[in-house]
Amino acid sequence: MKNRAHILSELEALRLQSPNDLEKLCKEYRDFIIDQVLQHGGHFSANLGTIELTVALHYVLNTPYDQLVWDVGHQAYLHKVLTGRKDVFHTIRKKGGLSGFPKQSESPFDVFGTGHSSTSISAILGLAEADKLLKQERQHVAVIGDGSLTGGMAWEAINNAAVSNTNVLIVVNDNQMGIDPNAGALNNYLNNPDVTSNFFTDLGFHYRFAKDGHNVQKLVQQLQELTKLDGPKVWHVKTVKGKGYKEAERQQTKWHAVKYVKIPQQEVQRKGKKFQDVFGLTLLELARSNDKIVGITPAMPTGCSMKIMMDEFPDRCFDVGIAEQHAVTFSAGLATNGLIPVCNIYSTFLQRGYDQVIHDVCLQNLHVVFCLDRSGVVGEDGATHHGLYDMAFLRCIPNLTLMVPSNEVELRNMMYTAVNMDTPVAIRYPKIVGTLEDWQRPFEQVAIGKVRGRYETGTEGVLLSIGTMLETALEVQLRLATKGLSLSVIDMGFVKPLDCETLDEVFSTYENVYTLEDGCIQGGFGSAILEYAATAVFSGKLHCFGFPDAIIEHATRQELFDMYGLSTESISEKIEASLP
Amino acid sequence: MKNRAHILSELEALRLQSPNDLEKLCKEYRDFIIDQVLQHGGHFSANLGTIELTVALHYVLNTPYDQLVWDVGHQAYLHKVLTGRKDVFHTIRKKGGLSGFPKQSESPFDVFGTGHSSTSISAILGLAEADKLLKQERQHVAVIGDGSLTGGMAWEAINNAAVSNTNVLIVVNDNQMGIDPNAGALNNYLNNPDVTSNFFTDLGFHYRFAKDGHNVQKLVQQLQELTKLDGPKVWHVKTVKGKGYKEAERQQTKWHAVKYVKIPQQEVQRKGKKFQDVFGLTLLELARSNDKIVGITPAMPTGCSMKIMMDEFPDRCFDVGIAEQHAVTFSAGLATNGLIPVCNIYSTFLQRGYDQVIHDVCLQNLHVVFCLDRSGVVGEDGATHHGLYDMAFLRCIPNLTLMVPSNEVELRNMMYTAVNMDTPVAIRYPKIVGTLEDWQRPFEQVAIGKVRGRYETGTEGVLLSIGTMLETALEVQLRLATKGLSLSVIDMGFVKPLDCETLDEVFSTYENVYTLEDGCIQGGFGSAILEYAATAVFSGKLHCFGFPDAIIEHATRQELFDMYGLSTESISEKIEASLP
Repeated sequence: MKNRAHILSELEALRLQSPNDLEKLCKEYRDFIIDQVLQHGGHFSANLGTIELTVALHYVLNTPYDQLVWDVGHQAYLHKVLTGRKDVFHTIRKKGGLSGFPKQSESPFDVFGTGHSSTSISAILGLAEADKLLKQERQHVAVIGDGSLTGGMAWEAINNAAVSNTNVLIVVNDNQMGIDPNAGALNNYLNNPDVTSNFFTDLGFHYRFAKDGHNVQKLVQQLQELTKLDGPKVWHVKTVKGKGYKEAERQQTKWHAVKYVKIPQQEVQRKGKKFQDVFGLTLLELARSNDKIVGITPAMPTGCSMKIMMDEFPDRCFDVGIAEQHAVTFSAGLATNGLIPVCNIYSTFLQRGYDQVIHDVCLQNLHVVFCLDRSGVVGEDGATHHGLYDMAFLRCIPNLTLMVPSNEVELRNMMYTAVNMDTPVAIRYPKIVGTLEDWQRPFEQVAIGKVRGRYETGTEGVLLSIGTMLETALEVQLRLATKGLSLSVIDMGFVKPLDCETLDEVFSTYENVYTLEDGCIQGGFGSAILEYAATAVFSGKLHCFGFPDAIIEHATRQELFDMYGLSTESISEKIEASLP
Repeated sequence: MKNRAHILSELEALRLQSPNDLEKLCKEYRDFIIDQVLQHGGHFSANLGTIELTVALHYVLNTPYDQLVWDVGHQAYLHKVLTGRKDVFHTIRKKGGLSGFPKQSESPFDVFGTGHSSTSISAILGLAEADKLLKQERQHVAVIGDGSLTGGMAWEAINNAAVSNTNVLIVVNDNQMGIDPNAGALNNYLNNPDVTSNFFTDLGFHYRFAKDGHNVQKLVQQLQELTKLDGPKVWHVKTVKGKGYKEAERQQTKWHAVKYVKIPQQEVQRKGKKFQDVFGLTLLELARSNDKIVGITPAMPTGCSMKIMMDEFPDRCFDVGIAEQHAVTFSAGLATNGLIPVCNIYSTFLQRGYDQVIHDVCLQNLHVVFCLDRSGVVGEDGATHHGLYDMAFLRCIPNLTLMVPSNEVELRNMMYTAVNMDTPVAIRYPKIVGTLEDWQRPFEQVAIGKVRGRYETGTEGVLLSIGTMLETALEVQLRLATKGLSLSVIDMGFVKPLDCETLDEVFSTYENVYTLEDGCIQGGFGSAILEYAATAVFSGKLHCFGFPDAIIEHATRQELFDMYGLSTESISEKIEASLP
């Protein structure tokens, strides 16, 4: 007979331990996570901060029958390891491998998929109310960071959960950090709460406090008590982000995530700067010469590089916390009184501020400059984080100008132009390294709604490109040229307004028109061209290249382009086949 | 010389009064508002509840230099009257008249336009931070109802404002009501707050309490003290919705708004039911035969008629408060554990839950049924409330089915079909009275992604219609027939998925194809048809009818259709001119 330990799952083995042995086990798990993440990349410090909490939760709860939801989910690595995914853990965030976040289709232990912040309380309340109606008794636990509590939807759910007739347990993993240190009143408050009468008890929650979230035995004991308590509960657990890895404890922002060291060949050759740093340095440059310019970020000063301006002009930068809705309307308020707000939000997170862009900025035609970082596919963060929909959901909004730079110089010039306009503007750009060594050229005004570059070589066909897909477009041009086919390329620069004059010329010159974008085809840039073509004189064929109507999973950007027919090879082949 | 009183503005006259005379003045204003709203329609009870507060604010503050923002703004009628708009007040909510909400372009006293809830704190904080940088000293005051505090963005702003180095004053107008009674823990809490140590003081606000918000003298005194206090402040003012009009005080939901009695001719002739009631009655019918079906509404049980189900199945309906984000993800949680959530959100308010529809429902392919009330133009509520963008922002989302019923029977059958699917669905419909007397027919399954009706009369041209625009489409068909022109009409029923088979047939049969929708042209239904046409064999012309890329102001629905070329006459003329 085999050694029984070998056929036990990780979780069964954990549950056989005595509470006294858990500390030792936590050490082993911590070492495993450190080793794995340093080797393969991924979220680092948050996972070290939740080792003991994760062990306590899975030790006490009867998962997956008891339901556990991880807010954001970047801290759920040990949860994955404990629930049958240890052997494949090294595949995390890689093509075909484990997702970096909990995911329903990956495991029954991932009760509810996450990725964006502040969703877990709504989800767990829904799960609990459903069970109540279905007369199913089990535990319902959400783990949410203090940073995520800043997000409005967490508040909406708290306000609702507190008066619900359920036993939901909200675990507040309080480490005072998001990626950057957390901002806001609640975070200050949590630092030093009155343990008997406080914010949560005022609202009607039972409240328990664990002042050392790394004492696993005490966590187990307190959690066991909590599971027996009726009614909605908050368990406030103090943890240290990066716990057990000294450098990470000291430099928490830097060690938030670790990059997978194997850099794709293409990226190595690039001589330019990250678009993020171009944004940050350009913003600083613009802010130096115009004291009306202010910066707004919802909790991403480092990620979007607004930090660069923040260091020099702390009073003119606002980190409002994980609060995209507020970030947008706060910017609208700043603009109303005459400042020029540059509001940087990741494309995928602007989905959270969509109503505010329409209702507070664009209907009032206010001069807010949105810089949408991480547009297009983002690679390893996957489906929840791709910025694929922004062109589709923004171009239907009146008054908004939507620019898409094709390189770092274009980004600079578009930012320069945008701060000098007086109406709403959005500029979207991906998280990539640029190609230009001399990117820091003097500013040039960009003509609104005019194409940005024409690379015309003949009249057989033309590829209308938006944004950094220009690089691919020009490669396609070159490749077709080697086969004796001439394809013109135009860098459109604007999704809105369109350059109708140039398009009229295009439609009367070319029989074969193609569009290329790093966004969803449905309603996106190509769709805008189709709409204009329908009103213009055009009798040719128009074909749109972009991401299809499907869930795009995680993989490197290049892998995703390859998978969805957006590589140079694939586009060249299709165009070649369609040209007469 | 003219009598001085005559050349004083309403506001100057107010400020000349002694505090003792304000009560009398409030009575006059209340009578004026009652008289005007009963005559011309509009929001009623909220305005009666804020008479004294409005007088106190404008008496003490030096508006418009001091800045005052009204959350939602439906309670700002007296504010409009006091600030130069008394003579034109009778035009409120009518074409070309005053907006029903504060509006920047209408008056410098309307510092920040509102309409959707929970925006005012973000706005006032932006205004205050801008003034701080511009070294401009003035008062910054936001008035927000306790219902609006439920909305997540209010929380995001509170969390940020409490630690700001500004003097913003947040006036909590606590009447315990939205349109329906407010839901949630904070509302309970506000009922009986500890006046020295509470929710707001915990976060760092100064806090003052006015237990009688209709004692105008006391309000003035307290406000004068508050304006001298440094730092962020909350003034908690208890008011009675409908104050001073007995029926309204007793039946607060019924008297929330009053309908303008002059009903358009067209509506009078209609024999059907309101789509809202069809929704409510159908939901009840479905719920009776399937106990998995539950209803979710963010604070609109009466407005969307979910109240009908709520009365019979209170445990299976959830009013989560003004909390669209939470409503969506809460529904996703319910669906995960096997229930069938029907989540009714007004089209314009779903913009608030957009990220959640993508991230929590559609990426996970969960079976949530969204019913989007008040889609298309809503008439008198105007620009902030039109549901014009839903088809554009929804059709780019993978996994989502998007249905649009052309009449009440279709709405019923689409709801019946939707609850029996197992993937995300949205059904959008306007706030109109239907045409069918026998709308309550037995349910019929709707084939997913198939056209719903073909009214073909020839091959000269075809009009692809979506939703209730079918009525116009058929009128156009009739009108053209009288001129000897044959126009076929197809009721498409689905924006997503499209009926590609029928479209292939259409494209091979007709040279002239038209699309018709009550939504924005950019990225909408017509755009979906254009996208498919680009991939199909089609050499004809395609023209899209819909709302243009512009801010659509308030007027009746019919007036708006007339203004934007979507009347039967206008569409007929354009089609006639384009047919060969």
